[in-house]
Amino acid sequence: MSVAPWRSHIERALENHREITYARYFQLATITRENRPANRTVVFRGFDAERDRLKVVTDLRSEKVCQIARQPWAEACWYFPRTWEQFRITGLLSLIQADNADMGLQQARQASWQELSDAARKQFAWSPEPGKPKTEEAIAPPQPSPTEPLPNFCLLLLEPVQVDYLLLRGEPQQRWLYCRGDNNDWSVQEINP
Amino acid sequence: MSVAPWRSHIERALENHREITYARYFQLATITRENRPANRTVVFRGFDAERDRLKVVTDLRSEKVCQIARQPWAEACWYFPRTWEQFRITGLLSLIQADNADMGLQQARQASWQELSDAARKQFAWSPEPGKPKTEEAIAPPQPSPTEPLPNFCLLLLEPVQVDYLLLRGEPQQRWLYCRGDNNDWSVQEINP
Repeated sequence: MSVAPWRSHIERALENHREITYARYFQLATITRENRPANRTVVFRGFDAERDRLKVVTDLRSEKVCQIARQPWAEACWYFPRTWEQFRITGLLSLIQADNADMGLQQARQASWQELSDAARKQFAWSPEPGKPKTEEAIAPPQPSPTEPLPNFCLLLLEPVQVDYLLLRGEPQQRWLYCRGDNNDWSVQEINP
Repeated sequence: MSVAPWRSHIERALENHREITYARYFQLATITRENRPANRTVVFRGFDAERDRLKVVTDLRSEKVCQIARQPWAEACWYFPRTWEQFRITGLLSLIQADNADMGLQQARQASWQELSDAARKQFAWSPEPGKPKTEEAIAPPQPSPTEPLPNFCLLLLEPVQVDYLLLRGEPQQRWLYCRGDNNDWSVQEINP
């Protein structure tokens, strides 16, 4: 499968920001049970090897897991400060747990665990449930295995169906809309900013 | 009316980032007609004088205007890179147009227009409709008046009802949830990160 045409813009933006850690963060919007928007910062963990899916990781206990089960549509908003570029990536989320039927995805989950820093892995070992009132119980767990993911560790894949690319530098600004067709081919159209 | 307790954290973060223009940008999530999340970068234009509402500006022709009319709930996600702070601000949006019945809000809209840069004001004079296929018609409009807003210029107010404040620096991270009660008073609880 060929690489989607919008990917080169993101890859170039990442290259232009390679020494800025937080340029790998984007904001991921989902919908709550009450039909309200939820929005949080996540860390981009690369593209899926076979398809143009964006990888992030999450804790099975986090609120977005329930939100996604109910409504898998999401929109990522990714702003690159140095080059004044914004990508709005609309797509479907899928959660990859340890028992995923697809062996390739199971391996991708394990590889994502192994690529995390020790500090990031340790966050999955914190015992108190995220979002619940703070308890005084010890939250200094032992360092988890660097190879074998904890059960609550999930890989989360965002499969884009539309990418709205806005280049803010210049007057007027420039904007392109990439849409995925029924045959998984991508079209692009320049649109008014 | 007293200032909401979470505001001091945002104001201190802004102070800590005062020379970083893009620290005043945050991502605003809304819900589309198709019940999918939409997410875009907006510019913080300050707090409302009387209440703790966040001010942004928008074009009456932008997609979010229709989304808000149907579903006014929104969540802003605001990440401050230097201090590793994230604010997730859940609230209700209201759109302030020229004909708003509240004179104070009409004046606030006009003041927001006057505070824009010339370049920002000019964006509202672009004639082609945003998001539509690019037309070749001239998009070099005359510079609009610096005092009198164009009719399509809107002030957009986000009235928070919940603020989830995450401080990522430190191990473990720290997180507080501010909730607005029925009497418009705010409570705060430390929660698990």
